[in-house]
Amino acid sequence: MSDTPKPALPLGFRWASTTAHIKASGKPDVALAVCESGATAAAMFTRNQVVAAPVTIGRKHLAATGGKVTAVLVNAGNANCATGPSGIDACQKSCIAAANEFGCVFDEIFPSSTGIIGVPLPVEKLIAAIPSAKAALGSSQTHAEAFATAILTTDTKLKVAHESFEISGKQVNLFGCAKGAGMIGPQLGPPHATMLVYLFTDLAACSEHLQAMLEKAVDPSFNAISIDGDTSTNDTVLLLASGQSGVTAQSTTVPAFEAALRRICDSLAHAIIDDGEGVTHVVTLEITGAKTEADAKLIARSIAHSPLCKTAWSSGDPNWGRILAAAGYAGVAFDPANVTIDIGGLRVFDHGTRSASYDEAATHTAMLAREYTIALDLGEGEARARFLTCDLTKEYVSINADYST
Amino acid sequence: MSDTPKPALPLGFRWASTTAHIKASGKPDVALAVCESGATAAAMFTRNQVVAAPVTIGRKHLAATGGKVTAVLVNAGNANCATGPSGIDACQKSCIAAANEFGCVFDEIFPSSTGIIGVPLPVEKLIAAIPSAKAALGSSQTHAEAFATAILTTDTKLKVAHESFEISGKQVNLFGCAKGAGMIGPQLGPPHATMLVYLFTDLAACSEHLQAMLEKAVDPSFNAISIDGDTSTNDTVLLLASGQSGVTAQSTTVPAFEAALRRICDSLAHAIIDDGEGVTHVVTLEITGAKTEADAKLIARSIAHSPLCKTAWSSGDPNWGRILAAAGYAGVAFDPANVTIDIGGLRVFDHGTRSASYDEAATHTAMLAREYTIALDLGEGEARARFLTCDLTKEYVSINADYST
Repeated sequence: MSDTPKPALPLGFRWASTTAHIKASGKPDVALAVCESGATAAAMFTRNQVVAAPVTIGRKHLAATGGKVTAVLVNAGNANCATGPSGIDACQKSCIAAANEFGCVFDEIFPSSTGIIGVPLPVEKLIAAIPSAKAALGSSQTHAEAFATAILTTDTKLKVAHESFEISGKQVNLFGCAKGAGMIGPQLGPPHATMLVYLFTDLAACSEHLQAMLEKAVDPSFNAISIDGDTSTNDTVLLLASGQSGVTAQSTTVPAFEAALRRICDSLAHAIIDDGEGVTHVVTLEITGAKTEADAKLIARSIAHSPLCKTAWSSGDPNWGRILAAAGYAGVAFDPANVTIDIGGLRVFDHGTRSASYDEAATHTAMLAREYTIALDLGEGEARARFLTCDLTKEYVSINADYST
Repeated sequence: MSDTPKPALPLGFRWASTTAHIKASGKPDVALAVCESGATAAAMFTRNQVVAAPVTIGRKHLAATGGKVTAVLVNAGNANCATGPSGIDACQKSCIAAANEFGCVFDEIFPSSTGIIGVPLPVEKLIAAIPSAKAALGSSQTHAEAFATAILTTDTKLKVAHESFEISGKQVNLFGCAKGAGMIGPQLGPPHATMLVYLFTDLAACSEHLQAMLEKAVDPSFNAISIDGDTSTNDTVLLLASGQSGVTAQSTTVPAFEAALRRICDSLAHAIIDDGEGVTHVVTLEITGAKTEADAKLIARSIAHSPLCKTAWSSGDPNWGRILAAAGYAGVAFDPANVTIDIGGLRVFDHGTRSASYDEAATHTAMLAREYTIALDLGEGEARARFLTCDLTKEYVSINADYST
């Protein structure tokens, strides 16, 4: 254990986990977070046309309460998606059971599920686990990390982030946690990931204001990452504010809070890619010189999702022609004669042709770093986009192809 | 050798190959096809914004001649793409050299290149190889197959197709050949793959009519396949007609010709997927019940390009939730409650939930077949699309990640 003091957690929350044996592994698979006084809430959900039952119910509950949450109940190991009306029914039953434990109305329970699609949720196991989860609640770092651990599936690492700042002698704290690690290509929309992200703060803010601040932080972070480009049916980012710092969101406090929220989101988004299935290289795509931000994003996504680019990155192959080709089929008009490409700061393509300074061996060496940047300037305008992605390895194929009846 | 008589080749063409040592392997890498009387021509090229020099020059030459081709000169091992003005110059020089050999104007030479992007074409090797290719020309099956072999790169199999039909006692012949096997996600547009396809016939038809017939055949064949979704900078489909069958394209002959052309294109498109890099399963996606054909195609492409679907297919994993999720993020509005999914004829998803008849073991067994169909009905309308794709294996990653300085 390190001697560094642990950062402070937001006041007003308690966390716990327990084991309901929904995960075949027998690891903790139920996570519970409670704000007994009721937290204000904002959320963003997947834009997939197919959504899991907890996404449907989560949206409904936030709408019904105007954004108030007493408890978050998460199960891992089963997505409760494509389970029809009985999936909705199972989710509702679990919310009612949790509400009974905490003496709140059932729509103040926010449900989440992650795991396999299309298998009925063993809701009786989930409901039976609620009392033991409640008994385990606590406000220490250990409790927060227990919550953050139980939501994991194929993840290999815990993904947590902390921020604190002071305003007029009062401290505001933020804590966030996330799960990755496959089916990651989030496209989060307002009150609409199996990326799950839970953000807790003790700032006091209304739901509408929290929603605006959340959307501003999610767009350049969770909406600008991709592992496999498969947008999940369950992606959810939830922000809860207990208000117990005594600091209210207003013009003097919002900039510091927004900056802290953005750092938490950037940190967790990076952690998701870094722990992506089979990932050996984390690549930042910096697209500049586009006519519009939408154009820059299209090019970034096209490169990020190209199997030929991603496999080349896995071996540090400087085959930049694949990057240029993926840009070329993104659906954005441009002239290659205006384009430059730099890998790890080394110019490889310069206005229509291989760079005069191109050094294949040096570029290969730069690409052996676990993290590096690929910069592509279109030479067409002033708009830009930043996107975080990763390589495609045999290990990714193994993880997702392993099957035994 | 089999005793089955070889199908007849179209009259008026001669083919050859030679070795110019552009491929590092030392295998034949220059393919030459000649129609000394001049063939009428139609072509479709990649819609990538970045195109190889031979695509630029091929477009120009067809425009300049109104669609007349005396010789097709193909090199494999170097794509002559992202090579700037000197790449254009190299391509033009090779056309001038070929024109001098065949006594035609240089714009009657149709150039093609396939291989690595961004490396200067060793044009002096290509030019030096033309006389020996010319000396090797002949009209036998062996000669046609020599042409079809020299255009290959990572392909493991020769891809050729033949069709013949009789009209009023006269025989019309078609011969086609293709190369795959990676960077396959063609999006061919009118006079615009590194899919290369060459189609030869002895029908007599004008260039405009050939173009119309070619577009009609390419849309449901080469434009409805994908290995990795990476649309190449060099994709080209060329159709040449010598006219030497004595049969002219007219209302009585066109239906038979169009049917034969479609069969050739379907056969070659299938052969490209079947020989795709690392492919162990060929999957036909049948999307039905869409509001528009464009919607059906979007859903098919989304499933075809999903790494999670493709890796599951590699092991016969019936994880149909991934198929449903990929449909859900295609950008098409639909209600999962109207959707059915069948894998290899077995119902797995039925109107919003797992099929009552779902049999995981039987579905897994169906998916062990090398080829099977996944049918998804949206229940929204009458439009449909068919798309041919494949699994994603560790072998694909190996082929595209192998790199040594």
